[in-house]
Amino acid sequence: MNFISDNAYGVAPEILAAIQAANDGAVAPYGGDPVTARLQARFSELFAREVWVYPVASGTAANGLALAQLTPSYGAIFCHAESHIAVDECAAPEFFSGGAKLFTLGGDAAKLAPVDIEAALSRFRAPPHSPKPATISITQATEYGTVYSPAEIAAIGAIARREGMKLHMDGARFANALAHLNAAPADLTWRAGVDVLSFGATKNGALGAEAVIFFARDDAEDFEFRRKKAGHLVSKMRFISAQLEAYIEQGRWLTWAGRANTLAARMADGFSDVSGAEMAHPVQANALFVWLPDATIARLRKAGAKFYDWRPSTNGRTMARLVVSCMTPQDDVARFLAAARG
Amino acid sequence: MNFISDNAYGVAPEILAAIQAANDGAVAPYGGDPVTARLQARFSELFAREVWVYPVASGTAANGLALAQLTPSYGAIFCHAESHIAVDECAAPEFFSGGAKLFTLGGDAAKLAPVDIEAALSRFRAPPHSPKPATISITQATEYGTVYSPAEIAAIGAIARREGMKLHMDGARFANALAHLNAAPADLTWRAGVDVLSFGATKNGALGAEAVIFFARDDAEDFEFRRKKAGHLVSKMRFISAQLEAYIEQGRWLTWAGRANTLAARMADGFSDVSGAEMAHPVQANALFVWLPDATIARLRKAGAKFYDWRPSTNGRTMARLVVSCMTPQDDVARFLAAARG
Amino acid sequence: MNFISDNAYGVAPEILAAIQAANDGAVAPYGGDPVTARLQARFSELFAREVWVYPVASGTAANGLALAQLTPSYGAIFCHAESHIAVDECAAPEFFSGGAKLFTLGGDAAKLAPVDIEAALSRFRAPPHSPKPATISITQATEYGTVYSPAEIAAIGAIARREGMKLHMDGARFANALAHLNAAPADLTWRAGVDVLSFGATKNGALGAEAVIFFARDDAEDFEFRRKKAGHLVSKMRFISAQLEAYIEQGRWLTWAGRANTLAARMADGFSDVSGAEMAHPVQANALFVWLPDATIARLRKAGAKFYDWRPSTNGRTMARLVVSCMTPQDDVARFLAAARG
Amino acid sequence: MNFISDNAYGVAPEILAAIQAANDGAVAPYGGDPVTARLQARFSELFAREVWVYPVASGTAANGLALAQLTPSYGAIFCHAESHIAVDECAAPEFFSGGAKLFTLGGDAAKLAPVDIEAALSRFRAPPHSPKPATISITQATEYGTVYSPAEIAAIGAIARREGMKLHMDGARFANALAHLNAAPADLTWRAGVDVLSFGATKNGALGAEAVIFFARDDAEDFEFRRKKAGHLVSKMRFISAQLEAYIEQGRWLTWAGRANTLAARMADGFSDVSGAEMAHPVQANALFVWLPDATIARLRKAGAKFYDWRPSTNGRTMARLVVSCMTPQDDVARFLAAARG
Repeated sequence: MNFISDNAYGVAPEILAAIQAANDGAVAPYGGDPVTARLQARFSELFAREVWVYPVASGTAANGLALAQLTPSYGAIFCHAESHIAVDECAAPEFFSGGAKLFTLGGDAAKLAPVDIEAALSRFRAPPHSPKPATISITQATEYGTVYSPAEIAAIGAIARREGMKLHMDGARFANALAHLNAAPADLTWRAGVDVLSFGATKNGALGAEAVIFFARDDAEDFEFRRKKAGHLVSKMRFISAQLEAYIEQGRWLTWAGRANTLAARMADGFSDVSGAEMAHPVQANALFVWLPDATIARLRKAGAKFYDWRPSTNGRTMARLVVSCMTPQDDVARFLAAARG
Repeated sequence: MNFISDNAYGVAPEILAAIQAANDGAVAPYGGDPVTARLQARFSELFAREVWVYPVASGTAANGLALAQLTPSYGAIFCHAESHIAVDECAAPEFFSGGAKLFTLGGDAAKLAPVDIEAALSRFRAPPHSPKPATISITQATEYGTVYSPAEIAAIGAIARREGMKLHMDGARFANALAHLNAAPADLTWRAGVDVLSFGATKNGALGAEAVIFFARDDAEDFEFRRKKAGHLVSKMRFISAQLEAYIEQGRWLTWAGRANTLAARMADGFSDVSGAEMAHPVQANALFVWLPDATIARLRKAGAKFYDWRPSTNGRTMARLVVSCMTPQDDVARFLAAARG
Repeated sequence: MNFISDNAYGVAPEILAAIQAANDGAVAPYGGDPVTARLQARFSELFAREVWVYPVASGTAANGLALAQLTPSYGAIFCHAESHIAVDECAAPEFFSGGAKLFTLGGDAAKLAPVDIEAALSRFRAPPHSPKPATISITQATEYGTVYSPAEIAAIGAIARREGMKLHMDGARFANALAHLNAAPADLTWRAGVDVLSFGATKNGALGAEAVIFFARDDAEDFEFRRKKAGHLVSKMRFISAQLEAYIEQGRWLTWAGRANTLAARMADGFSDVSGAEMAHPVQANALFVWLPDATIARLRKAGAKFYDWRPSTNGRTMARLVVSCMTPQDDVARFLAAARG
Repeated sequence: MNFISDNAYGVAPEILAAIQAANDGAVAPYGGDPVTARLQARFSELFAREVWVYPVASGTAANGLALAQLTPSYGAIFCHAESHIAVDECAAPEFFSGGAKLFTLGGDAAKLAPVDIEAALSRFRAPPHSPKPATISITQATEYGTVYSPAEIAAIGAIARREGMKLHMDGARFANALAHLNAAPADLTWRAGVDVLSFGATKNGALGAEAVIFFARDDAEDFEFRRKKAGHLVSKMRFISAQLEAYIEQGRWLTWAGRANTLAARMADGFSDVSGAEMAHPVQANALFVWLPDATIARLRKAGAKFYDWRPSTNGRTMARLVVSCMTPQDDVARFLAAARG
């Protein structure tokens, strides 16, 4: 019963098979191989326009590189105070960008709201004492398992355009958001004003495969230097590219994400029978944040369930974070709920 | 009637005289001169222990270099959300440190409170996902013209020591704090746990002279490389050093800061007669933050008064920031108050 | 007939099998898994002392992170002008370190010589105008396929210790050097004064697995922050660790490197029959640098051979670089030589 | 008899007078003052086209900021191996740029030659493994007291334009070069393809005043953020601006530089009578590099002469560096030569 994170699980068989299939003979290293060459077309088709795709091996790299590409060292990046880039990446964007400012905002359920972005902008009106507002970063699905609608993204995209800023989307769980909304990839990205997407596959069945995806050639200029300089141009890139190709083939990524979402929704439903359980956020993707009585928490741990205490015990209850992966055994959900019911 | 900032005023005659006196013949450049050599002893005497003094030309440089010296690139710096390093230095600490995290806290009147620091620490308990808490930075006097007592500093210093963190003090207006408290420099710094001080003179009568002061040799190790690499080792350093020497000679710095504080206090008293005026913060140094009716604001501007609107008009009143310099003409205060009374 | 690079080839079956074996159930991400936990002991045994092992996904990352760990931003790194870190990593060490100076030296066959290091030191005697000599970096085996003897390394290590500098070894082809010398890993590293090793496996049969190995705990302090901040802490680390474990198990790495070296030596021998061929460097590992008549070069390309022209055509001949992998088909060598003979 | 450096001398009376004249009342800080406002027009007139002028306090800052403005973090800067930016600034450009590559070239008398630049370019043909050639930096006058002719600069400028690179000029001793050539400032800069100039005044009579001068608006975009972020936007900027204004007024800068050049030339002539003296480089500006018998060196030191040994004693003679300032007493030159003659 491991609900620690979606990256606690391993690799989907289809992904492993793709790695094996790519292991054939000698090819040009550093992305000069045929699999990597195909990605450009595959992803352009997926996003219904020409895109520029750069595979990397970690989500922190994808975010840091994408943000550094669009943010000068003297720029400011607006993001949610609970976002991964603000909390969980050891200040990687500040490093990759050469010292840009991460300016954190509030907002319900880890989602940025236009009104808070406007308020933040009003604090950056004394250049060059205040850094130059350069980038807005949103997470889709968010750290709290919630999802921006296309209209919500477009409203933020409109501010970015008006201000000459760029819009970045951390899509470590992009598939989960897409599966929830049943929307087209284009609707959640460039059509809504997103300039660059950190496209994640690792949390949804890949071994280690992410991609930085730009929607305009100018935004991608010289990006290959940036990736190399940071040590993120792997020599045997075909094995990352093969994962990405297999991932989006036959709609696998959405099938997998849909499965995780469905399990998470089922789990959320199941908590209605758990005494004292209260959902902290709507469950729209594959993560649940639920307040549980401390006794329930203790019982779950005793039963072998693994998960994070997201907020420490207050007034006899603790907020648990439960993340469901596309590979989480269905039984684990049932067993978890049974243990929770006591 | 210029109350924009204390750096809107020029140079005290004694400082200019010291610059002229230092302009004699050829000396070793880059701090190899006799004036710079004397600083070490002068400041050690001032602080009642051996200190290591590094003159620089700007306060942003002093802060950025001091913080980079004590904070690794993967470290976090805790500071107030209204502090100069967080708001007014274009994210210089992030640049100097190679990407350290500035983590901002609240606190009344721009002062950090131990309880908020403890709460912040609890958010940095997932290394290496969260950066390493490395430094706490406080401002004395604060951006809001308030002053930490020695006991308040010591309480923060105790947390820093317990956590293996360093304590930095931005002393751009250190003289004003000292004059307010009538304390010894040592009491506000190393005796209270401060590891490094950005010692400012520019806002209090110098032309351009700041110093980074370390209280332990280990903390200062290799600092001369860091200063040089950032372009802050000026060749004709004797002219900065001469300012610093003249500044602390005969207690001038405290006399000057005391004069500014006194004028500010008088101005604050004067507002008791100004209809609708309300002080936003206690006036302990040389800055006032006062809510004034918008009509009063308009009348003051018409009379030629210069100052910042710190908060925009809300419910018919605006918060003005008024900074008094040691060289502000006494009459300006009286004229300002008269104009405010209408 | 692909002799472009040893990373043009894919993954050894034993490595793929190890990846598959590691794909079992849910484990703690980010290196909290059992495979990663075992590495510490496995590598300590291999190096005959306690070591600190940090898996990463690329050699550029291993080098950049290792160098940044031991070199302050104001430090200088001495290395060969033909070294990978100087030529082929897009100035990654300068980026990871926050601006350290790479100071390049000459030396036959891409090997640093003590005399040149001493001469370089004499150019760094004006601190803080000259950066602080902090690190020496050597490559084993070198870019030119040559190998340092333990005594040669020890001579450089002695200078490093005398000067308070650290010694880094870029071991992207460490196995090939070891196989050539038939020495113990300890003899080429800590016993000879090496402080940190970039241990490569990717060029010798792995999918993508490198490790930064420290030989003293102090040198490794906080390294996990640095790796995370640069995006090199992958979430499903078990799959990198499993490669490293399988790689050193049963002496596979040396078997494989030995095979590549043997093929390279055979190829070198074969050139004795090739008219106009002249070896540019001794062949000690798995790379050959050979001057060939331009007509021979043309014939080889026509026959489908892939390799780099290392030096452009001069006086009718061109220097070719030929790299043999542990997976290069034996026939390819024979076919290449046959084509060269015409 | 101080020939250590031109910055060993103090401040010209006219510069001090300008500082005092600027010390009048309260003005807007951070360059919002009237003196700074005038600089834009003054320098545009001087350079016979619209320029963008940014005063800073040190030459290292001017160089570092100018280079970082035109060089991305993944870029390469070509410069002479003996240039100030390569040797004497503690790798400041690498720091300011976030890790750009300084690639050093040879060339007689510290001057870059087009043929060497072309050869360097041929080494940067494997992007993204090699950094992107972004900037060429030349020094005028050079570290060796030699001067580029307008045609020599134009030849380098032509390469830069052809390659899409930018051309930077370190003009710490720009006045000395100009005085030597008796050319127009425009001829040595934008007309010859220079994109940005580090304009120095400190070594030629100022207290501490340099300026970064751009010749195209696009090149200067956002530069004020960069200057602020690095701590080089001084609050009382009027005192730097006043120096620069007084410096170029009435042709003072050229008069002063001319005086230094003339003294240096006279000194060079004087060495024709000094037994065993041999000039190492042509004397075109205000620095001399002269081989002297060790006995002569000893005699000079005994007589109180101060200067650097540029190359250590070899075969009984040592290369001395002698720098003449615009304020070097004429007698010192005569006394020095007398002591040299013995």
